[in-house]
Amino acid sequence: MSKEPFKRELLEFLATAPARYLPGVSVNTVIFSFQGEKLRVLMVNYSDLPNWYLPGGFIEKEEPLDQAARRILTENTGLSDVYIEQFATTESQTRSQTYFVEEVLKKIVGRLPAGHWFDQRFITVCYYALLDERKVSLQAPPFVSEAKWVDWDELPEMMFEHGPIVGKALHRLQKDLDQQLVGLNIMNETFTMGELQKLYEAIHQRPLHRNNFQRKILGLNLVERLEKKVTGKAHKSPYLYRFRKRRKT
Amino acid sequence: MSKEPFKRELLEFLATAPARYLPGVSVNTVIFSFQGEKLRVLMVNYSDLPNWYLPGGFIEKEEPLDQAARRILTENTGLSDVYIEQFATTESQTRSQTYFVEEVLKKIVGRLPAGHWFDQRFITVCYYALLDERKVSLQAPPFVSEAKWVDWDELPEMMFEHGPIVGKALHRLQKDLDQQLVGLNIMNETFTMGELQKLYEAIHQRPLHRNNFQRKILGLNLVERLEKKVTGKAHKSPYLYRFRKRRKT
Repeated sequence: MSKEPFKRELLEFLATAPARYLPGVSVNTVIFSFQGEKLRVLMVNYSDLPNWYLPGGFIEKEEPLDQAARRILTENTGLSDVYIEQFATTESQTRSQTYFVEEVLKKIVGRLPAGHWFDQRFITVCYYALLDERKVSLQAPPFVSEAKWVDWDELPEMMFEHGPIVGKALHRLQKDLDQQLVGLNIMNETFTMGELQKLYEAIHQRPLHRNNFQRKILGLNLVERLEKKVTGKAHKSPYLYRFRKRRKT
Repeated sequence: MSKEPFKRELLEFLATAPARYLPGVSVNTVIFSFQGEKLRVLMVNYSDLPNWYLPGGFIEKEEPLDQAARRILTENTGLSDVYIEQFATTESQTRSQTYFVEEVLKKIVGRLPAGHWFDQRFITVCYYALLDERKVSLQAPPFVSEAKWVDWDELPEMMFEHGPIVGKALHRLQKDLDQQLVGLNIMNETFTMGELQKLYEAIHQRPLHRNNFQRKILGLNLVERLEKKVTGKAHKSPYLYRFRKRRKT
């Protein structure tokens, strides 16, 4: 997108946003993916704006909070009906908000009207989701010029306090994993213990001991082992598991 | 407080609030207490307003979010330096907000100016704390006419969606308990395993099996057992425990 249309669109957005959205509140989504090996995070950038951002947006005046988060997820991934979890509400440091308005926004659009919606402090309600990357086709929401999956250990510098937000999201995902795994829809319908262990290792960011891991997972009573089909080589292939329909407690 | 001074104070609050606080965001605190037997929750009501409420308030324009929550906790309990945990951001149903404005607020103060701060939708950032009731002296923050500890199973009808918020807080406390116990400062410096079990039973709202509980707690490596003092009857008294200074991981 060249600068002039971007400036026009941005000016129009800034003019209409206060009537359309709740003041002072944004939503950010930390969208993790896992594809068998590495944990990755969806990052976006906006035409002519520096740095990278978490996918995010604002809450329409009459829109429920969780629905806004799901809409933003859909706008970025094309997916709906995805498990999404609110994990924190944070705020930007004054200096990063000021930097963004003074050094980024005003250099494109000129002055903002006094007391403009965007020139005020924001708090941001944060959600995470864990997706199967193969099911996602990255979308182009308004202003997004580039969207990409980034390996956990190669995350770029981010605007505002999006870096610490990603850290918090991973911490919460680690805490939630044993209880929410069934809902995360990240595994195939059947999987080996080794495949499940790879997911845990990617999320906990460390290797896990095979026997301990197997004992823990079986102890959680989340999965059930399938009978092996009797074929010539079946006895050499690993057992397959699937999630139990309902967790026993 | 008789009606006329209350009305005057309320009008003054409504006139000055938009300049002082962030628009559209409130803070609610679920303040649990435990005193050896029952889990209780701090409820307040406001002069001439119906129903009960969670202690809460608003965020000053320049005030960090967590600091606002701590201020509200201090205003209500007199305590500072207390472990407080953000657990959710929720919103009121339109109908309860409308009911409050139309049937409660306007009956006291008359019309609100069009588009007034209080007549808009609010989202609310929710925190919980778990306190030792004996350390609390209930305060009288602005407008609070009565504050009381209520047993978990006798919670009153509450305004807005404060009832479901309390339910969410307990659910989160149950999830957090094993990891945050040291920080909660709810036990005496030394305690018996039976006293700790009573806390767990109050929070999980069910009796726990004594041997299983002891095995679980010792497995978490949170507590250490003190040597018994050699006195005549010491061998009959229960062991005392204290929290480890630093949790081994």
